[in-house]
Parts: sequence; C-alpha cells; structure tokens
Amino acid sequence: MSDPIITSPANPRLKALQTLRRRRGREQAGLTLLEGYDELGLALDAGVRPRELFYCPELMLDPAAQRDVVEAARGAGASVIQLSRTAFEKVAYREGADGFLAVVPAVGTTLDGLSLPDDPFLLVAEGVEKPGNLGAMLRTADAAGVDAVIAADPVTDWGNPNVVRGSKGTVFSVPVASATTTETLDWARARGIRVVAATPDTDIAHTDADLTGPIAVAVGTEKEGLTPEVLDRADVTVRIPMVGKANSLNVATSAAIVLYEAVRQRATRV
Amino acid sequence: MSDPIITSPANPRLKALQTLRRRRGREQAGLTLLEGYDELGLALDAGVRPRELFYCPELMLDPAAQRDVVEAARGAGASVIQLSRTAFEKVAYREGADGFLAVVPAVGTTLDGLSLPDDPFLLVAEGVEKPGNLGAMLRTADAAGVDAVIAADPVTDWGNPNVVRGSKGTVFSVPVASATTTETLDWARARGIRVVAATPDTDIAHTDADLTGPIAVAVGTEKEGLTPEVLDRADVTVRIPMVGKANSLNVATSAAIVLYEAVRQRATRV
Repeated sequence: MSDPIITSPANPRLKALQTLRRRRGREQAGLTLLEGYDELGLALDAGVRPRELFYCPELMLDPAAQRDVVEAARGAGASVIQLSRTAFEKVAYREGADGFLAVVPAVGTTLDGLSLPDDPFLLVAEGVEKPGNLGAMLRTADAAGVDAVIAADPVTDWGNPNVVRGSKGTVFSVPVASATTTETLDWARARGIRVVAATPDTDIAHTDADLTGPIAVAVGTEKEGLTPEVLDRADVTVRIPMVGKANSLNVATSAAIVLYEAVRQRATRV
Repeated sequence: MSDPIITSPANPRLKALQTLRRRRGREQAGLTLLEGYDELGLALDAGVRPRELFYCPELMLDPAAQRDVVEAARGAGASVIQLSRTAFEKVAYREGADGFLAVVPAVGTTLDGLSLPDDPFLLVAEGVEKPGNLGAMLRTADAAGVDAVIAADPVTDWGNPNVVRGSKGTVFSVPVASATTTETLDWARARGIRVVAATPDTDIAHTDADLTGPIAVAVGTEKEGLTPEVLDRADVTVRIPMVGKANSLNVATSAAIVLYEAVRQRATRV
C-alpha cells in the first residue's frame, strides 16, 4: 500500500497550502503549517492531530528511520501524500527543507481557555513583532516550565510559520493565548497573578524582586519596550543590570534571564 | 564642500567591497564590513577608525540628524563617499538597509593579546557555527560585563558581516579572540581561570556552582554541545534545569542564562 503521489508543483492541493502562509488564510481556516521532522515529532508527542502530511523521501535525512513520523501522523488521522522534490520545494517555506510539511489545527486560546495551576508561572509578550523572537521565547518557556505564554496586543499570530519554526515545535507543547493588553492585565489582577514588568526604567534588579507565587513576567517590543499601560499597572517593575555600551538585550534573551531567575527562586523556595 | 558620489553599481570601488563578504577576503585585507547607523555609532564610540564610509541620504531615516555619524567617521580618518540608492543597494547586505556601510579594521586578537583584569569573567564559544548566535552572545556579553569572548575552534570569523550585524556593533566594544580549543584550555589553566562548561550531561545546576572569581563559561554548538575535550578538562560542568519537551535551549539563550547567574553571584559577593 503506497500513498498518493503529487509530482506537479501546480497541483491544486498544493496551491491551497499557499493560503495558510497568510494570517488571514490561517485564521479563516483555523489551520496552520508545520514543517520539519523534529518539529512534527514534538507536536505529535504533544497530542497535535495533523489534517494532512506532505512528505518527500528524497529530502529526508534518513527516509527509512523517519517513516516513524509518517506513520504517527497517519495514526493521528492525517491524510498522507508523498511529494516529488520539485513539488515539495514549491510548498516548503524554510531553507534546508527536510521533507516534512503538515497542515495542523491552529493553536492559541483565550485567557479563560487556559487551564492553569494555582500558582501559575506565565510569560506575557506585548506587541512583539518578530516571529523569531516569539519562537525563541516559546523554546525558553518550554524549558523553564512556564505554564502559558500570552501574546498581548499581538501583531503576529501564533500560527505564523516563522513562530512555529523558531519555536522548534514548542508552540504545540506550551499553552498559548492571545488577548488585548487591557484584558490581560484585568485577567491577571482578577486571578491574583502578580505582573512583573521588565523594563530598563526602574531601579529594582530582577534578582531583587520576589518572583515566587503566581506571576506573569511581561516583556515588550525591542524598540519601545512595554507600553505605559503595562508599566503603570504592573505589580513590580524589574530591570536586568546592564553594564555594556549597547542599549539593550534582545527581547527573547531578556525574557530568558528573568524567567530563569524565577526558576531559581521557585526551586529554592521551600 | 561635498563628498564624491558614486551612482553606478558597477563602480570598481564598490566591486572591491564584494571581496570582504568572503572570509578569505576579510582575512587577507584585515578588514571587514559594518552596516547600520546605530552599529557604526557604537563602533566609533568604541574607538574604531573606519577606512571608508559609504552613505546614502535617500535611505537614511533622518539624513539631517544622521550627518553626525558621517562627520564622526570622517573625523576618525575615513574617506567618505556618497552613493546613489541603486549603488548602495548593490553593496548593502542586510534587509532594511539604512544608508550606512563602512569598511573597518577586522577585530579579534590572540589569547595573549587580551588584556584582562585579575578576576576575568569570560565566555568561550566552541565551534558555534551560526553567525547570528555569535552576534547574540556578544550583545549579552556586552550587557553582562564579560571581559572577553573567545571563539574556540571557530568555524566563523569575528568579521563575518552577520556576526557584526547580530552583535549590533558590540563586536567592536567587547574584546574578542580566537584560538584552538586546546590552546584555550591550556591558557585558562595557566592563568588560573576556572572553566565552567555548560552541558545537559551533568547533575550540577548552574545556580549551584560557584561562578565567582576568574571564570570562563564555555558553550558548544547547538547540535553537539561542547566537545569531550572541554567537558573532560573543565573545572566544573553545569546544566540549566529544563522541564520541557524540546531538547535544548538555543545556545545564545543558554549562554545568557549562565552569564547572568554569574552576574548575580558576582554582584552579591562582598
């Protein structure tokens, strides 16, 4: 038994994938694209059920061994289609395509859709525009055991293929939500979650603030930082000490430093 | 008095810049390329003396205000040439070119060429291949007050335009050196610098190791981590606790987390 094969890059089924490259197309379909063997494996482990899997044996690093993900996707309900190299390269969006591209349900919920422990440890990314930075923050959030990442006043959707790619698939394992900044702050207050705002404009080092208990670490855009609304309503503002000549750390790096200081404090708390 | 203007992308002076896109060309000339208004300003502040400055008023965000960097480069000895937009776009290597491109002396010294305090705080990046990761580590090193960054068994030179770009110019403010891994370890031992190797394969959390005193934090490639040589000869191996489903943090993120734990420990030590 073999899978149907598409060899023409002009095949309508492949053209339909192009609509998922656009935010509007993703939001209308409730679907997004996921590329890469490792990423797809991680998503399947996280319970993602792909609708379609397109694979290209010629591009796979190890076609025999990597059949496992093809079969896992099929087992999760995906319709599975083999592509010629020419056809796959038409639909792949990243350099170094490795022969795996899946159509998966879009991720992301509302604030009320998150199921959280009593003592949540959250990351809020306000207005962050670069998908690569959102992806990097998801990897760190995954490693640090963050309970959810919230995009406040988002300019990029969680289904953006570059977020998915930068996250190495962790966008499917870390719960994510989107909301306005105002909604996020109201929700945090109502739930007793302290908002810890990272900003250069404070005298409190991040290591001197209490990062235990229910907290949401908030970071803003690289250029402008957090909005005044967040800074005004935050429970505490913290800064990362910087002695250098450049203005600021990368936003994903800043998030990692504060999140891991929280990990340290939360681990040593009895 | 106005600067000479080049309007043709085929001008030999512009063609000569292409050789600096290649590592061999940079190493032969002892020169590299630096692009961007902010980056050039930072380099000038750090004492860099550009040989040539190519600028394009049409691409500048604020041509009147940004004359300051043109004049600073001229004052530092640069020959200054105005380019047409077509000509500039031919030589620019990054997206969103902002009208500044300089030819500057290459950076980087040997281990013995570094001038260090008694209590050095160093970062060693072994075999890191992605220029963007090296650049990101430089930004963090600058912010954290690292005394020097050493590329051990480097696969990318410090003059790589994507390192320069990713570093936001901090490659010119943070001392950088290159050496083999063996030389680096020998040198550290001879100087009494403890090597702290970051690896998933240890039980010691980075927050439980002593990161005060003379230390070199060592990180390896994203795929393989540090080589056995570094792991065997390190004074201590440390791991960043990870609870997530993905395999690892980004290497620049890992470096940032360990470096900032060192900053915390070094600040609180009396």
